Amino acid sequence: LNPLFAGLGTTIFEVMSGLAREHHAINLGQGFPDGNGSPEIVAKAQEALADKPNQYPPMLGLPELRQAVAAHGQHFFGVAADWQTQVIVTSGATEALAASLIGLIAPGDEVVMFEPMYDSYLPIVRQAGGVPKLVRLTPPHWAVPEAELRAAFGPKTKLILFNSPHNPVGKVFSAAELALIAELCRTHDALAVCDEVYEHLVFDGATHRSIMAEPGMAERSVRIGSAGKTFSLTGWKVGYITAAPALMPIIAKVHQFLTFTTPPNLQAAVAWGLAQEGDFFSTLGREMQRKRDLLAAGLTRLGFAVQPSAGTYFLTVDIRSIGYFGSDTDFCQRLTVEAGVAAIPVGAFYDGGLNTPYVRFCFCKDDSTLIGALDRLEPYL
Amino acid sequence: LNPLFAGLGTTIFEVMSGLAREHHAINLGQGFPDGNGSPEIVAKAQEALADKPNQYPPMLGLPELRQAVAAHGQHFFGVAADWQTQVIVTSGATEALAASLIGLIAPGDEVVMFEPMYDSYLPIVRQAGGVPKLVRLTPPHWAVPEAELRAAFGPKTKLILFNSPHNPVGKVFSAAELALIAELCRTHDALAVCDEVYEHLVFDGATHRSIMAEPGMAERSVRIGSAGKTFSLTGWKVGYITAAPALMPIIAKVHQFLTFTTPPNLQAAVAWGLAQEGDFFSTLGREMQRKRDLLAAGLTRLGFAVQPSAGTYFLTVDIRSIGYFGSDTDFCQRLTVEAGVAAIPVGAFYDGGLNTPYVRFCFCKDDSTLIGALDRLEPYL
Ligand SMILES: CSCCC(=O)C(=O)O
Ligand SMILES: CSCCC(=O)C(=O)O
Repeated sequence: LNPLFAGLGTTIFEVMSGLAREHHAINLGQGFPDGNGSPEIVAKAQEALADKPNQYPPMLGLPELRQAVAAHGQHFFGVAADWQTQVIVTSGATEALAASLIGLIAPGDEVVMFEPMYDSYLPIVRQAGGVPKLVRLTPPHWAVPEAELRAAFGPKTKLILFNSPHNPVGKVFSAAELALIAELCRTHDALAVCDEVYEHLVFDGATHRSIMAEPGMAERSVRIGSAGKTFSLTGWKVGYITAAPALMPIIAKVHQFLTFTTPPNLQAAVAWGLAQEGDFFSTLGREMQRKRDLLAAGLTRLGFAVQPSAGTYFLTVDIRSIGYFGSDTDFCQRLTVEAGVAAIPVGAFYDGGLNTPYVRFCFCKDDSTLIGALDRLEPYL
Repeated sequence: LNPLFAGLGTTIFEVMSGLAREHHAINLGQGFPDGNGSPEIVAKAQEALADKPNQYPPMLGLPELRQAVAAHGQHFFGVAADWQTQVIVTSGATEALAASLIGLIAPGDEVVMFEPMYDSYLPIVRQAGGVPKLVRLTPPHWAVPEAELRAAFGPKTKLILFNSPHNPVGKVFSAAELALIAELCRTHDALAVCDEVYEHLVFDGATHRSIMAEPGMAERSVRIGSAGKTFSLTGWKVGYITAAPALMPIIAKVHQFLTFTTPPNLQAAVAWGLAQEGDFFSTLGREMQRKRDLLAAGLTRLGFAVQPSAGTYFLTVDIRSIGYFGSDTDFCQRLTVEAGVAAIPVGAFYDGGLNTPYVRFCFCKDDSTLIGALDRLEPYL
């Protein structure tokens, strides 16, 4: 069997959601919203099921969705991209990452990545034959350590893979950090693959900056978006890639043999959604910020040191603040089983797992869910 | 860039469909039915969009669909499988193949395959580090050459990957051929991965035999099915894997990082579909056989030597029969552009491409489409 996967466990998100289901815990672990997502977009998907042929759409995605992705990126994030040569649709951001990494990495290429990081990155980089160069963001503020980052780049660097806004820590990369990454990419003739699925979930008046909009990066970047995150429809598995023209052909060639294409009715509905007015997206961000504040205030009241979350729909707490000095994994398991509230250990986002004092809670939930979780935690703690 | 993909072209199906769109050709190339698929199943998907959370379902798939897949395989093909340890849902059969092959193959493992073969097999086997051992089926009847197959197995063989019913040639592997494959797998302690997506499209009173039902193969097989093919909903990209219990964990670990999961409303509708009475499926097969006969008779009338098609929704012709001695690729291009009928060259199903005298036509189309294509071919030829 494949030795790169034989040693891996099941993804932490599935493990904790499974434990939550088993123990009827309130699930603030895996990142998915309560509810059915935007009713108007769901209605569009229902119409398209009846109106569109339910047959293979073009392998690169519906033209209307590819156009919408390009226009949306230009409008909100200043990313100029030609939809025909730079945009493809994938079966979720997970497939977008897999197709991009398998396409771009040749065996022996070095790949710069930050820890903590989303858990699909390392297995896929290794499967592609990439050699990870890991740089740890510095807690508690998760700054990019400049000297370490500089040292991680070298003549064998093919690309840097990162995530902004950052899951799990809710960090939004600063203008200076993005400029540094861009500088290093230009200097070392490296590419950037940026997982930007939380692009509309940036709080406190800030806006997302795409690596692709940095000077000189349009021709060396891949940015990944997700309808699941943007429209609270995580089950739809509609993702999209915007890439430099020179990078798209190889990514498409991998995509054609990973999934080939994505359900046309869901694509059509997402195309409609992306064409909505800016209000739609700013409302989502404001609403999520309110939920962040609700959960952060509650957890603070319970004694947790809540760390800042500038984006995503996650926040982290330092469990030492409530006098817990065991492992984050044990803490999350006990919280799920004993208190009936599931969370995710931040240590699961390090290569091979790490014991950290940080635990992630998801706040993209109905207020009643968040309050219910706080109500369960209070007597337990 | 990844050297294994850098040299590949765009999949022949997309190329010919693109050319067909451009030239308003009747598309008998890429295999997808006319129309919207079964209206009842589409209605179920519409209901599920409104009723089910549009959020991540379990990573392995909806329990109701996994149960339905297991029950269906048992009922129709005598494959006994426990849904909890042996069935997962994937984003189409393409992803099912990718997850299975990347999971099971370790670098250096030999993989026995037949030519012609479906075009995603080789790139994925190579990406997984597998060493292809290619055995050519013998035209015009595409029999398995026993001596060559025996010779292809050896101490390094990890698995045999094949497709029955066979796309593109419409061959259904005989009981003797399956027994031979099973014998070789047992003798060499090898696995079998069988793409059985056309399991309900077997004609002339025959029924599909699954490799997994052969003696000793339950513990060493992976079989792959597709709602796209079974319900004429190729755009839905709902596939499923039934695997020996020992093989499932590693396949699931790859799946979780390729797509993670598949839209829950489509899964729910397919679960409903798989639970239909046997009539539903035999009607599909009978109807497709009628279409095969319609197209075969028409092409014969036009002078083509039509080769037997015992299953799938494809038939092949020998283009020498109409006095054409150029390449199959040129023939298909000219047919699309000049006659307005797209077809697929069988040579595209060989490693690196081959010049063959065989061309594939798809017959899962409305009668009017098939007749329209024949009407265009008649004056052209
Ligand atoms: C694909 S399941 C993981 C969802 C998610 O992005 C998270 O919880 O971090
Ligand atoms: C994924 S597109 C190919 C469809 C098909 O199975 C075929 O035409 O052979």
